Amino acid sequence: MDYQGKFGEALEALTIEGRYRVFADILRRRGDFPCAVHHTPEGTKPITVWCSNDYLGMGQHPSVLAAMHEAIDTVGAGSGGTRNISGTTHYHVELERELASLHGKEAALLFTSGYVSNDATLSTLVKILKGAVIFSDEKNHNSMIEGIRHGGGPKRVWRHNDLEHLETLLQEYDNDTPKIIAFESVYSMDGDIAPINEICDLAEKYNAFTYIDEVHAVGMYGDHGAGVCERDNAMHRIDIIEATLAKGFGLMGGYIASTAKVIDAIRSYAPGFIFSTSLAPVICAGAIASVRHLKQSNVEREKHQLNAALLKERLALENLPVMHTPSHIVPVLVGDPVQCKQLTDQLLDRFGIYVQPINYPTVSRGTERIRLTPGPLHNEAQMEHLVKSLRTLWNEMGLRNGYDWCQLWRGRIAVAGQFELGVAAGG
Amino acid sequence: MDYQGKFGEALEALTIEGRYRVFADILRRRGDFPCAVHHTPEGTKPITVWCSNDYLGMGQHPSVLAAMHEAIDTVGAGSGGTRNISGTTHYHVELERELASLHGKEAALLFTSGYVSNDATLSTLVKILKGAVIFSDEKNHNSMIEGIRHGGGPKRVWRHNDLEHLETLLQEYDNDTPKIIAFESVYSMDGDIAPINEICDLAEKYNAFTYIDEVHAVGMYGDHGAGVCERDNAMHRIDIIEATLAKGFGLMGGYIASTAKVIDAIRSYAPGFIFSTSLAPVICAGAIASVRHLKQSNVEREKHQLNAALLKERLALENLPVMHTPSHIVPVLVGDPVQCKQLTDQLLDRFGIYVQPINYPTVSRGTERIRLTPGPLHNEAQMEHLVKSLRTLWNEMGLRNGYDWCQLWRGRIAVAGQFELGVAAGG
Repeated sequence: MDYQGKFGEALEALTIEGRYRVFADILRRRGDFPCAVHHTPEGTKPITVWCSNDYLGMGQHPSVLAAMHEAIDTVGAGSGGTRNISGTTHYHVELERELASLHGKEAALLFTSGYVSNDATLSTLVKILKGAVIFSDEKNHNSMIEGIRHGGGPKRVWRHNDLEHLETLLQEYDNDTPKIIAFESVYSMDGDIAPINEICDLAEKYNAFTYIDEVHAVGMYGDHGAGVCERDNAMHRIDIIEATLAKGFGLMGGYIASTAKVIDAIRSYAPGFIFSTSLAPVICAGAIASVRHLKQSNVEREKHQLNAALLKERLALENLPVMHTPSHIVPVLVGDPVQCKQLTDQLLDRFGIYVQPINYPTVSRGTERIRLTPGPLHNEAQMEHLVKSLRTLWNEMGLRNGYDWCQLWRGRIAVAGQFELGVAAGG
Repeated sequence: MDYQGKFGEALEALTIEGRYRVFADILRRRGDFPCAVHHTPEGTKPITVWCSNDYLGMGQHPSVLAAMHEAIDTVGAGSGGTRNISGTTHYHVELERELASLHGKEAALLFTSGYVSNDATLSTLVKILKGAVIFSDEKNHNSMIEGIRHGGGPKRVWRHNDLEHLETLLQEYDNDTPKIIAFESVYSMDGDIAPINEICDLAEKYNAFTYIDEVHAVGMYGDHGAGVCERDNAMHRIDIIEATLAKGFGLMGGYIASTAKVIDAIRSYAPGFIFSTSLAPVICAGAIASVRHLKQSNVEREKHQLNAALLKERLALENLPVMHTPSHIVPVLVGDPVQCKQLTDQLLDRFGIYVQPINYPTVSRGTERIRLTPGPLHNEAQMEHLVKSLRTLWNEMGLRNGYDWCQLWRGRIAVAGQFELGVAAGG
């Protein structure tokens, strides 16, 4: 048995498909984000990051960094144990209280990542709610799919954001069957948003338990940054809200918020929670500061939405195929994995613009794209440089323009002038 | 469907069994570890931690903390993305190089936790090595068991550290069947150590791929802290070494080290790696400093082994049922989950000693225990206080003494005078 050969074959398959990934080795500069430095074999060069999920730049916020310094000086580095065995520090307790309050829930529970929070919670839910059927939106994140699969119960996939299809599937089960509806608020690659209240209406009608992933929304939507559920006045209608500390809040780690009983049960039964060393106190301390700041400040959210709308408008004016999204996510279609990679390589090498190609399996084949994440810290000049550079490469590479994509994807490609600039996320 | 009621029932089941866990809310004091503060509804009180997995106190080491401060000042808080999408910083690249070099391997790969590294790697291995059978030691950690289960392939469980049984199972398969032998070096609850070279002999004889979990050994064994494989001169014989940054190294996160091809394939195919925000740079920076320090310093390792031997000797002298282990882990048997919890509650409330009860399912029923983790920073007086307090409670509660356990568990309970004090871990 040639084991190394088998690994080689697996890698070759990726390369042939144009899906082999090269990680860019970068270093952000505090106080200077979205500027960063790219480390290459030939040395370092300055770049602008346009694909970070530190959406609001909170990973640079002085109050977050001050809280982290203080935690290191107070308690040191790691927590030293699982939550049960010496790894529950006062920082964990405080952060969980803060998150519960943010979402208007009785309790919250931290995980080492958003991935683990979805995986551990969904798989454990199925075990506690014996015989439960999970109704899963077809565009749910891999961590939700894996969690559902690990639970081992029956699963029904409903067409993306399609209420009629969801209802058809719900109708197939009697009232006594436990049902869990699992979905996201903001979908990360298309940037569209779920009809949360309408899904809750169905959940009430068919007596289903609701689970929402708000990882691409917390910090960024709602008057206090609690996400789209807050904006849409639906927090109290959702049973479990799952989210992350790694994107809008600028740190790392994931969490769920729910009733005290649900949290206590997941805490007690989920292996991915029980058997992991807890988050380092320094991470919790930074997160507490970040959540508290965004609870009372709308400046970042407003600038974020404004910059997203501005960038979409500019791209559309340049006849570039930017997707029409109701969120801060700005996908621009390329439609081919090899060209997508060439495009981003050229952006980085010639223009100092860092964006990653988004290829299958993250998006379906034929819809390969770049995904831009303008933040409140991107300035006019950086935006101008990005749009001009894209136009240059679009011409050189002969890529399909916005109007041409419009013929194919009616209504989903943005047209200049349709953006309501300055609409606040909290509104 | 009464969903909340179902969660309540699940919790009640735990309570009836005496397995409901209460997390102690503690705060370590930098520079003062193992001293800490316990937060209770009645206020705070000083305690000594005797159950931390920050085995060497590296979570307090000045060079680790300095590196963390520096990273925050240089780059900020979180990484802002998955490894592929803007989340590979120069800290990640450097730490992976450092870990590969530590284990004498071509490459290494970071995960957000040791749990995820086992889960993601083992489940992906089975998919890449199609048709592979996994031979799993019966005492393997939950994260390995879950990873193997998630891979969905055939599994054979061999009796703990039983080479004869392992060989019998290996013999059942022909030479062309891919085989993976998965085991740990130091087993965390019994403190025993696997016969690594003998397992590698079998792997070579039957052409099997080897996977070892060294989470309770890295930093602590071998001349450079690379673990028991280094001490036993077996690093080159193991295909994948998995370990953690959260215990001996004092931070958080997990990793694997292997050939460049294996690492590249796991990096490219493991969902739990691909879809997670990477470790915060501040964590990587601390880990780099910790790994580098322990590569060249034996002081911590020697003091650690000395204190473990001293504590075992003292407990045995007091006729307390300390298990005879060849490692730094010091389990003391209680044998009943309710008494185990009472014991640790009394230790905390009356004596300011913090230890957690270890009950089923972490250990099998009837072998409930406390698990002491003496470190290089525990002093004489703290050790004396611990042993005296245990003796007092053992008398008051009428718990079974060392000699009585000896009758039941011949050879596995320590007898005073059998410890080789001062034997270096690196030896």
